[in-house]
Amino acid sequence: MNRKAKGINAERELTHLFWERGWFPIRVAGSGSSKYPCPDIVAGNGIRRLAIECKSSSDEKRYITKDQIDDLAAFARMFNAEPWVGFRHNADWFFLALDELKDSGKSLMVSFDIARNKGLSINELAGNKTSNN
Amino acid sequence: MNRKAKGINAERELTHLFWERGWFPIRVAGSGSSKYPCPDIVAGNGIRRLAIECKSSSDEKRYITKDQIDDLAAFARMFNAEPWVGFRHNADWFFLALDELKDSGKSLMVSFDIARNKGLSINELAGNKTSNN
Repeated sequence: MNRKAKGINAERELTHLFWERGWFPIRVAGSGSSKYPCPDIVAGNGIRRLAIECKSSSDEKRYITKDQIDDLAAFARMFNAEPWVGFRHNADWFFLALDELKDSGKSLMVSFDIARNKGLSINELAGNKTSNN
Repeated sequence: MNRKAKGINAERELTHLFWERGWFPIRVAGSGSSKYPCPDIVAGNGIRRLAIECKSSSDEKRYITKDQIDDLAAFARMFNAEPWVGFRHNADWFFLALDELKDSGKSLMVSFDIARNKGLSINELAGNKTSNN
């Protein structure tokens, strides 16, 4: 399976995790190649909205450009949404707020250790599974 | 060009119309086949959010099922967004609020005349083009 297909599978998995927890999730079409700033996933639960950039490669270190973070923050402002970066590792997801990522460089690296130590789990971010799913 | 490709082209055109007007638009991946209720396009401008189901066939009459309308309304509630149905005809778009569509039947028909007479234009819905686009 190529990198793009892996990414889409991970995004589908994440939308399912939100749906199980009572959220309405959407995957953004062409999020990797769109002309306009956009995240990979947006989810709403009637009160909160989340805009999520997904990093799902199996590499121990993931790189995010400053431009990607700026785009995610701009999108979130326009949707009154919370910006998050989601890291997938061994079927676990960890979510980092943008202030955990800020750096002065053009691109920044987040190791899985950082994501695991500082990130929220899916239950911490979105609540536990609801009984009606 | 097949029906699906035409639909995607129309959605791309609409996202561009929103972007020109200062909105951040996204197309929803797999909106026609997703397991979860979702619209075709979501757009935000920092204050308002719109959830839009697109009807872009060249037929004079378009059909929408009651289930599609219920799904659009449910999605909009979860995103605190306004639900709209967008009709494209001869390169013009008209947007109808859901209460213009309500009917008792399982499926309902909207002719282009109804859309043109009762619908909003893109400028009425989303404002005029901004100078910085």
